[in-house]
Amino acid sequence: MASRFQFNISATDGAARTGMITTPRGEVRTPAFMPVGTAATVKGMLPGSVAETGADILLGNTYHLMLRPTAERIAALGGLHGFMGWDRPILTDSGGFQVMSLSGLRKLTEEGVTFKSHIDGSKHHLTPERSMEIQRLLGSDIVMCFDECPALPADRERIATSMELSMRWAARSKQAFGDRPGHALFGIQQGGLEQDLRAASAEALQEIGFDGYAVGGLAVGEGQEAMFGCLDYAPGQLPHDKPRYLMGVGKPDDIVGAVARGIDMMDCVLPSRSGRTGQAWTRRGQVNIRNARHADDPRPLDEECTCPACRTYSRAYLHHVTRSKEMIAGMLLTWHNLHYYQELMAGMRAAIAAGTFAAWQAQFHALRAEGDIEPL
Amino acid sequence: MASRFQFNISATDGAARTGMITTPRGEVRTPAFMPVGTAATVKGMLPGSVAETGADILLGNTYHLMLRPTAERIAALGGLHGFMGWDRPILTDSGGFQVMSLSGLRKLTEEGVTFKSHIDGSKHHLTPERSMEIQRLLGSDIVMCFDECPALPADRERIATSMELSMRWAARSKQAFGDRPGHALFGIQQGGLEQDLRAASAEALQEIGFDGYAVGGLAVGEGQEAMFGCLDYAPGQLPHDKPRYLMGVGKPDDIVGAVARGIDMMDCVLPSRSGRTGQAWTRRGQVNIRNARHADDPRPLDEECTCPACRTYSRAYLHHVTRSKEMIAGMLLTWHNLHYYQELMAGMRAAIAAGTFAAWQAQFHALRAEGDIEPL
Repeated sequence: MASRFQFNISATDGAARTGMITTPRGEVRTPAFMPVGTAATVKGMLPGSVAETGADILLGNTYHLMLRPTAERIAALGGLHGFMGWDRPILTDSGGFQVMSLSGLRKLTEEGVTFKSHIDGSKHHLTPERSMEIQRLLGSDIVMCFDECPALPADRERIATSMELSMRWAARSKQAFGDRPGHALFGIQQGGLEQDLRAASAEALQEIGFDGYAVGGLAVGEGQEAMFGCLDYAPGQLPHDKPRYLMGVGKPDDIVGAVARGIDMMDCVLPSRSGRTGQAWTRRGQVNIRNARHADDPRPLDEECTCPACRTYSRAYLHHVTRSKEMIAGMLLTWHNLHYYQELMAGMRAAIAAGTFAAWQAQFHALRAEGDIEPL
Repeated sequence: MASRFQFNISATDGAARTGMITTPRGEVRTPAFMPVGTAATVKGMLPGSVAETGADILLGNTYHLMLRPTAERIAALGGLHGFMGWDRPILTDSGGFQVMSLSGLRKLTEEGVTFKSHIDGSKHHLTPERSMEIQRLLGSDIVMCFDECPALPADRERIATSMELSMRWAARSKQAFGDRPGHALFGIQQGGLEQDLRAASAEALQEIGFDGYAVGGLAVGEGQEAMFGCLDYAPGQLPHDKPRYLMGVGKPDDIVGAVARGIDMMDCVLPSRSGRTGQAWTRRGQVNIRNARHADDPRPLDEECTCPACRTYSRAYLHHVTRSKEMIAGMLLTWHNLHYYQELMAGMRAAIAAGTFAAWQAQFHALRAEGDIEPL
């Protein structure tokens, strides 16, 4: 194992890159999709099953963990990895995004944010310094700066003010993070859909200096076209030789479009959340397994998929257990969705390495355009 | 694989027996505990995980499956085994017990029972003939006679009338079942807590002739002392050389007491249902993992247990995910409970084979009397 955090790009194809992040906890093949383990569990999955899907790294949520069971408790128990039974790398967010989403329950100042817990209404304070402390207590391998971002659309002044505050918080985050060999700190670019503000943010972050850079403040209501418009320039404003992380994205076609624009890492609750509501993602797009057309269908969700749901079960079974609200429905569909997402990433990595990513994308879109298999 | 249903006793110790049921689908080591897979899934478990706990056989519920997804649909899809991904033996109940539990929603006649679905209020009819047809459509390996039983306490006349009806239904079940090599049909003894009625029922069943015999009508509110009182004589009224199945039992000490009295098979929802509500069963008795005393406890539920919950997780983690209502809580605790139940059965089988079952029982009770480990 490496003793420090490294990133190496092994191939590029257009703006897309493939490579490897190396940490003392293990390697992360990029482009990487990180399943979300909000409250110290990827909902509906055992950690060994998450690893079986091909995930190299998980995301943990500072906001949820600080409230329950608390970062101090997890630290006393030896850290998040052992607590949740996942020994590979973990990236933690800063808590900022989720606290900002608690409209009405929070108060923002230069110092930080005061908010009330959604669990018991208790009052909490988050600052760049406290976020760094929590992420250290959790034992996170990749720590995110504490930042603030407005929902889009927002006016330019609100976006500029927010970005500037986030840059001051980024400097405080770096200062508080200190020197922690083997652990990485990522800065977060803000600036909404304003190219010059994004450039200013990228410049401010690089002056501070980080191990990786996130494109923040997207996937907050702007739509795919606007997001891709921003990704046409934002990754290029960030250092070429550091990982670029697009936070909270997304649907499979969002992910493919982001990778094509130079993104190396992503996370999203979508594959797991969809799985718990009967939604499956396949090479042919989205399938609502609750639909009555699946009730007698002996075929698997995707005949080429090798996940346990597709290897063992018919659409009829998945339909039955979803309708019956059985736990196995969420377990199998989450597994399938995470498996599909990891296959998607593996396919892109191979295509970028082979220099055939354009053809791979054409095939990806062509199969989705065909749509799901016809009912029997 | 055997081409027909067989039962062989390899050792006895007092009234307790150990042996093997052989079916074309596989072997069942007795005494056997059958996890309940009500709606074509053992709640919270993948079938491979159920097999890993050591279960040789599952129970499926005719009542639930006939309503959703329907027996005809499962038959068209190739049967219950393939549908739910479990290729080992399956025993199905007759639907009788669950229909009888629908008080107010059902009407009982000599012919059978008319009832309304708890799912959509639709009207259904169950008779011995229809129950046999449904269990055949499901592809059940061990089919149960359609019977009727009153909740206890009930007066002697109600018990006698009900038992006699069940015996007429047993004859009709046998007739309707016909000759199905490789599949077994079990009769169900009734008679409440009346020894002479139990004897008459056992005699009536043996005149018809079955591949195995259940002790029915217990675990319906009479309490452990009364149940054991009945089990002191009921198994001995049934043939020695056929499996004896105690339906719907029970807690670990119920199970041990039943095996000591000559029972070979049992089923119960308890280990899986308990697991979904934060209740764990260990060698030291019941543990409520929701209790605050576990919040900081780094120790496993049971340090000698080899299940994934005990191998990987602390009580603190199990407490956290249970309090947080995470799916993994029910998944891990169900796995642990089913694992513990199967270890219990394996322990009893080994002790009976070694002729040390009395000492084994003393140890079982002594450890439970000590109670759960002290808080840190």
